[in-house]
Amino acid sequence: MAETTPKPWGETTVVGKPLPRVDAYERVSGTAVYTLDLLLPDMLHAATLRCPHPHARVKKVDFAKALKMPGVRAVLSDADPEANIPWHSGPGGKPASRLFDSHCRHEGEEVAVVAAESPQQAWDAVRAIQVEYETLPFVVSMEEALKPGAPAVQEGGNLGSKPNVYSRGDVDKGFAEADALIEETFTTSCEIQSPMETFVSVARWDGDNLMVWDSSQGPFAVQSGLARLLDMPLNKVRVISQFMGGGFGSKLDLSKHTVIAALLARKTARPVKLALSREESFLCVGNRPAHTMTLKAGVKKDGTLTALQLTGTGEVGAYPGSTTVGGQVMELYSCPNVRTEETSALINAGQNRPMRAPGYVQCSWALEQVLDALAEKIGMDPVDLRIKNFIAVHQAQKGLPYTSAGLRECLMEGAKAFGWKEARARARGNGTWLRGVGVAGCLWGYAGGPPSTVIVGLNADGSVILNMGAADIGTGTKTVMAMIVAEELGVPLDRIRIEHADTGTTLYSAPSGGSKTVPSDSPAVRAAALDLKSKLLELAAEQLKTPVESLELRGGEISARGGSQKVAIGNLAALRQQQALVGVGKRAPNPTGKTARPFAAHFAEVEVNRYTGEIRVLRMVAAQDSGRVLNLLTYRNQVFGGLTMGIGFALTERRVMDQPTGKMANANWHDYKIPTAMDVPAELTCVPVDMHDHEWNNTSTKGIGEPATIPAAAAIANAFYHATGVRARSAPMTPSAVIGLLSQGKVKG
Amino acid sequence: MAETTPKPWGETTVVGKPLPRVDAYERVSGTAVYTLDLLLPDMLHAATLRCPHPHARVKKVDFAKALKMPGVRAVLSDADPEANIPWHSGPGGKPASRLFDSHCRHEGEEVAVVAAESPQQAWDAVRAIQVEYETLPFVVSMEEALKPGAPAVQEGGNLGSKPNVYSRGDVDKGFAEADALIEETFTTSCEIQSPMETFVSVARWDGDNLMVWDSSQGPFAVQSGLARLLDMPLNKVRVISQFMGGGFGSKLDLSKHTVIAALLARKTARPVKLALSREESFLCVGNRPAHTMTLKAGVKKDGTLTALQLTGTGEVGAYPGSTTVGGQVMELYSCPNVRTEETSALINAGQNRPMRAPGYVQCSWALEQVLDALAEKIGMDPVDLRIKNFIAVHQAQKGLPYTSAGLRECLMEGAKAFGWKEARARARGNGTWLRGVGVAGCLWGYAGGPPSTVIVGLNADGSVILNMGAADIGTGTKTVMAMIVAEELGVPLDRIRIEHADTGTTLYSAPSGGSKTVPSDSPAVRAAALDLKSKLLELAAEQLKTPVESLELRGGEISARGGSQKVAIGNLAALRQQQALVGVGKRAPNPTGKTARPFAAHFAEVEVNRYTGEIRVLRMVAAQDSGRVLNLLTYRNQVFGGLTMGIGFALTERRVMDQPTGKMANANWHDYKIPTAMDVPAELTCVPVDMHDHEWNNTSTKGIGEPATIPAAAAIANAFYHATGVRARSAPMTPSAVIGLLSQGKVKG
Repeated sequence: MAETTPKPWGETTVVGKPLPRVDAYERVSGTAVYTLDLLLPDMLHAATLRCPHPHARVKKVDFAKALKMPGVRAVLSDADPEANIPWHSGPGGKPASRLFDSHCRHEGEEVAVVAAESPQQAWDAVRAIQVEYETLPFVVSMEEALKPGAPAVQEGGNLGSKPNVYSRGDVDKGFAEADALIEETFTTSCEIQSPMETFVSVARWDGDNLMVWDSSQGPFAVQSGLARLLDMPLNKVRVISQFMGGGFGSKLDLSKHTVIAALLARKTARPVKLALSREESFLCVGNRPAHTMTLKAGVKKDGTLTALQLTGTGEVGAYPGSTTVGGQVMELYSCPNVRTEETSALINAGQNRPMRAPGYVQCSWALEQVLDALAEKIGMDPVDLRIKNFIAVHQAQKGLPYTSAGLRECLMEGAKAFGWKEARARARGNGTWLRGVGVAGCLWGYAGGPPSTVIVGLNADGSVILNMGAADIGTGTKTVMAMIVAEELGVPLDRIRIEHADTGTTLYSAPSGGSKTVPSDSPAVRAAALDLKSKLLELAAEQLKTPVESLELRGGEISARGGSQKVAIGNLAALRQQQALVGVGKRAPNPTGKTARPFAAHFAEVEVNRYTGEIRVLRMVAAQDSGRVLNLLTYRNQVFGGLTMGIGFALTERRVMDQPTGKMANANWHDYKIPTAMDVPAELTCVPVDMHDHEWNNTSTKGIGEPATIPAAAAIANAFYHATGVRARSAPMTPSAVIGLLSQGKVKG
Repeated sequence: MAETTPKPWGETTVVGKPLPRVDAYERVSGTAVYTLDLLLPDMLHAATLRCPHPHARVKKVDFAKALKMPGVRAVLSDADPEANIPWHSGPGGKPASRLFDSHCRHEGEEVAVVAAESPQQAWDAVRAIQVEYETLPFVVSMEEALKPGAPAVQEGGNLGSKPNVYSRGDVDKGFAEADALIEETFTTSCEIQSPMETFVSVARWDGDNLMVWDSSQGPFAVQSGLARLLDMPLNKVRVISQFMGGGFGSKLDLSKHTVIAALLARKTARPVKLALSREESFLCVGNRPAHTMTLKAGVKKDGTLTALQLTGTGEVGAYPGSTTVGGQVMELYSCPNVRTEETSALINAGQNRPMRAPGYVQCSWALEQVLDALAEKIGMDPVDLRIKNFIAVHQAQKGLPYTSAGLRECLMEGAKAFGWKEARARARGNGTWLRGVGVAGCLWGYAGGPPSTVIVGLNADGSVILNMGAADIGTGTKTVMAMIVAEELGVPLDRIRIEHADTGTTLYSAPSGGSKTVPSDSPAVRAAALDLKSKLLELAAEQLKTPVESLELRGGEISARGGSQKVAIGNLAALRQQQALVGVGKRAPNPTGKTARPFAAHFAEVEVNRYTGEIRVLRMVAAQDSGRVLNLLTYRNQVFGGLTMGIGFALTERRVMDQPTGKMANANWHDYKIPTAMDVPAELTCVPVDMHDHEWNNTSTKGIGEPATIPAAAAIANAFYHATGVRARSAPMTPSAVIGLLSQGKVKG
């Protein structure tokens, strides 16, 4: 096993190239079998009866009529002892609910489920179940929830967590030292993860062995979650998550429907598919919680930040969840005096779940607009202000230096690519459309690490099997990992078979999320490939009777440097004899005494229609220090996807709760506005910043998914301010909100 | 990777125990998915049009009517360029045929194939294909085939191979030195492999990746065969052979139907299942060829063999095949003068294929009866004669000694268990039923070896994944391999998941056959488990701050010898941190300068009805030197299965060719007589002989499948002679044959 740190890559022949995905054919032609596509013989289909009320007690569930309906094979509810499974950790780690809980705390909570021969029969039967509810008072906004006497979502009240306080230095002293102060309150809306493939699990039992196909980012997390809840050892739970249609954090770990599918499959002794409709996935499987943040900041005339103070509340839904990351987000800028106090509020709505850079997107919305405002106050360019305050040391973690920190480079190279100075100086216009440009920066709190174990096997003909646990959630993980193997072994990409994301056939990998997959797994892949390479060269050295040090592996051939001897891998007699070689690689521990973060700076140019409130994003530049680019094409895919998500956050996306009924008013793709191609500028530019960080890991990678979206919305908001002179404190900036802002504020120009 | 030779096992806690199979539940409950059970969405079903004539040319194939039939999606025949694939190697390695060859050389050869939505539609369409044949003269018996002017099966004539001659010493001199001579001609019948699961493949393409589920003993052999014929690299061909219903050698490598399924799947862009009916499998996918053998042997009065001379011909079917192993079989006994001359004859019938101890069963039928006759001639006990001539050295291979050679022990311990002396002395009876006992010995020509690579992974909770390429063809391979892991890692069997026989997820293993699976793969499994164990103990040593040498792993716990410290595997902090550990094991090379063979001695007691010719096998004892017994239950299963097959060979099984029509007359389980429970004695005794061979490999195993069947038939034949005084030279000894024999010979008593 190769755990030692190999030499960093110099010039590469495969890595870094903009190659199409290795599974492009399957994805485009439709032969790829996603979990939703999976059909097993004798498979039943399940449908879930969900509470239609925002807050209710289930008094009685009558299955009599449903059970008589054609095709119905089983029902399950809180009345079944096997379904008595705790769910949601409440305060103090106590379970706050059960799999089917008679106390439903939001619209869409699971009341019962039916398994039938067809999805239609299952849904018909769901409609035939008669439930007697006792409706309860409810609250569906953070503001109302925290008022005294508000209906209690949980027994302990509506404060989801004790205030989480972080403090260093003395903020009052810092504010006193400041030449300029800003204090603003920002709000963001609840945004829903809405992956192309909704949530679906298929479960099958063979004896006491459970097999689950799941649309999941983390097959190993789903495996351990199921093993824990069903009291099984890991070897008896196999989870497969190959071909996955997106997750954005909502599929990082086990969901209720997966457990339910497993229980129904056990009860019926048949495979069971439980697929959530789009509406169900809007209600129940996660969201980016709305935030209210008051941020106070002080700055000296020369641009030195003196103090940052944040108080924030996240609207986490009906069950507690942590959303307190303000302190981490503000690590981006050097500041001796920082205080954050964050809490969360419970409301009768679906629970939050990590969503692409959880917390960071919201806090960045506040922080980066405040930076913008401070720059204006002291008359400094916003890019310069950020550069001035950037620090390559993690301030909270005992001053740990970063192995690389490219925010300055992102800002400078991004500004150059964007034409920042010129754009900033251009008139904002004075007709119907007002123009402006904005910038925002960010870091992201993770850069991966152990554990991941990867196996690379060599077939007798020189073709290769890459065996890794990581799921490819649509980002191109399979492609970039195979490229590393191709690079090291000198084999063409199409001579590599990839086995992945199957807890039965691959070894542990952390869930694919948090921008951690590439920096966590690619070093293990490289280590495994190099381990295999060294074994291969040893065999060749024996056959060629040449010292192993003199051998080179290139283009599928092994040759002696300076000599004429060479042999194709597939012609190595010893390989043909052994039929297979195997290399194992583990991710080496992260370097001690240092840490790493990816950084980014986004630039946006917008125009604002002063009469309709419409905002058009004209172009964006994203400069990303995510380490080495493994594949320019998939890298750009992720960056452009991140920018698109940022546009949605800034301009269109929000969960609308109907206050009188407590129900979500836009639980569908028509009313919940995800940006379409028409909302995204054709001019999106990706500027990779490679700091050649050879210290963090052996592939010099840091991760791209999250930092590609974090600052995008704030950059747009700052551009809006630049265009209009009005600060948009609330996201999204819908046309009606913009009209309101423009009518209140003074639009210059 | 642990390649060094570990210490042999002393006392074991799991290995050797008669444990039920790890997959017993799935096999018994029916949840096991055999290839025949596999249903894929959109799967088509194929059916094959086979030549009804023993010898014909296809002049015209008219699909017009078939193509219009409901559900028909594709047809394939020799007219399709993509089906122009060479098949069968002829003399000099030249292809003797094609996948669909217009020259059909036996009943059942493939003419065309149809893929349709259902098997019924496919068969209906097959019947609607109109074929114009030109029938040709044929020959379906070896005797006729070798006559001058016989119809030629192949262009080169009906001699399947040049005579294969082996010679050492001087047989004429040896015969001159003999005190007693025997020369007899023996014949055996063509026997058909008839596994419970017939032959079936399912093929699916994803882009240019081919996935095949196959009822196969050798998924890696099928993979490389497909890759070669379809000109693909190995990484693009995935073959899975999990849950397999028997093969007996007929599924060691690629069959035509598998290639056809792959071609149809490519043509239709749909998964295709091609399952052979029982009748098809009788006609086309292999058999143990009939043999005619003339054996001359000389012996001195003291029992010393002086010369052995064999001339033999195998009736190999319509395509050449090697069946010349007489020299190897006769290696069992020391003899300075040996000459064998073997050839094969082509007839218009299905081609032979390896069948459980190919060649050995036939030659043993002759050799062991001749030994019996020699013993009688010189008045020596047949057991003693065998012991006297046994030699623990391979005579042909430059006098290589065996690492262990337990024939003597098999004979002695078997005789003891059988009560040989007493049974031999007992009167044979003089009423309707005549009694007798017989013995026969054998060696088998293989004892396994590299290459096999196995991976054993440890989950964070201490449960285990065993990843190995070997197929479990019904013999219990999964069970015994998991037991080795359980033994070494101290984990219960049900904490081990087994991934196997999938070229996409496991590493190369040779086909499961030839009694080679256990001696080839179990040492690799043990090496992998020990590799993992050493890594595990290293982690524990760190956590317990104890030298690794002082640590013991037992019952899922690691403890320091003599100390009180201990930790459960699942509680090892470092394991939880790393989430997975992995051990890799390869089969070490076989020891140089030595070789190994398994040995066996079988004893049978029969009674013969002198009026009806019925032979009843009353009891059998099989003493087997197959090395260490890994699981007494699966070991006994194999031995009893081997004895049963021996009974079939001796008494009931034979392919009947109808001479006037050239067609097989008994291609079904009603007319082709496989022994049923009623034909097998309740008293079957297995006597494992363990020579504690720690030199051959690290599990001290040699293999059991073949040697459990080789001498069984001859032991029965010798018992028949003992009962009747009449030598049964032809197998099977059907009642009518026995009546014939008894009417010719003189039945004593």
